[in-house]
Amino acid sequence: MVLDTSIFVNPDVRSPFGKTPEEAINEFLNLAKKSPSFDFYMPSSVVKELFYFIDEKKLSRDFYYLIRIKSPDKHRILCPAIFFYELVEEMRIRINKGLRSAEHAVKTVSQKGIEDTIKDLRKKYREALREGIIDSKEDVDLIFLSLEIKATLITGDQGLIKWADKLGIEWIIPEKFKEFLISSIR
Amino acid sequence: MVLDTSIFVNPDVRSPFGKTPEEAINEFLNLAKKSPSFDFYMPSSVVKELFYFIDEKKLSRDFYYLIRIKSPDKHRILCPAIFFYELVEEMRIRINKGLRSAEHAVKTVSQKGIEDTIKDLRKKYREALREGIIDSKEDVDLIFLSLEIKATLITGDQGLIKWADKLGIEWIIPEKFKEFLISSIR
Repeated sequence: MVLDTSIFVNPDVRSPFGKTPEEAINEFLNLAKKSPSFDFYMPSSVVKELFYFIDEKKLSRDFYYLIRIKSPDKHRILCPAIFFYELVEEMRIRINKGLRSAEHAVKTVSQKGIEDTIKDLRKKYREALREGIIDSKEDVDLIFLSLEIKATLITGDQGLIKWADKLGIEWIIPEKFKEFLISSIR
Repeated sequence: MVLDTSIFVNPDVRSPFGKTPEEAINEFLNLAKKSPSFDFYMPSSVVKELFYFIDEKKLSRDFYYLIRIKSPDKHRILCPAIFFYELVEEMRIRINKGLRSAEHAVKTVSQKGIEDTIKDLRKKYREALREGIIDSKEDVDLIFLSLEIKATLITGDQGLIKWADKLGIEWIIPEKFKEFLISSIR
């Protein structure tokens, strides 16, 4: 299995495991230890991202045994061209949407004031150009590692799930991940 | 060889061949007919794009014999994951640049007026998010067709050349294409 940080960091997805990221990881490790069927991997970029959010000192020492660090072999892994087409077409639509948000902001700033307009613009621009799309090295690492080692992707990011699904990568409904682990133990 | 419309449509690149797109294509066909060494291909999306710009009636009938229509086999062609990484990282930088242009527009509209601000915003946004990047189905078709049939890519689009070069696709300096054809005839 390939793990994303969102499982432990996003409060909606994390809640079955714990109240804080540290609590959630430790509860996950507790279950993972009892579940003999799975290996857990994180690309190095995702481990790095995780350590922005958590206090390493509060982690169970099992972390480094149960969660293995492995990035995809990105110079050798191949991806069908059609995947590339879909990303470029989606980006094109979103780029146009981002411009429309920017133009709307320019037209309405005299009524709403600069500060509120920019706040609103950032939100809309983010929705148009970042959400639901593969937009970071971490996202690409998670997709290609899952592909390379034929692993199940565990993420709370619906955008990532959508793109992984296009490549035939197995995934689990993030809110059901804890129950999934418990079922595997029985 | 895989041909892009820019060779005939972009005035800077077209000039050695002719003053209008039709003149340029006919001069190209004239040379292509004498050059026995090459086959010329255009993906269907690029042929369609070309016919927005030119009057089909003014074309030499050799067009349909000398320029073959073939799109890449996009469900079967594979592309190294590293290419995907580079596109996503470049897009990320450009998305941030686009937001900065939009914020700048919001802050300066009270001095410059809505109309001029939007005009300027569109230009800067375009530079940030469209130029020098693969941003259309046509671009992706040209890249993957060149890859599939191991052809030389002939385009006046420097962005496309940059990305084709990353995949080891052969290309010709667009301004030298006419001289290249002439040399092949001698």
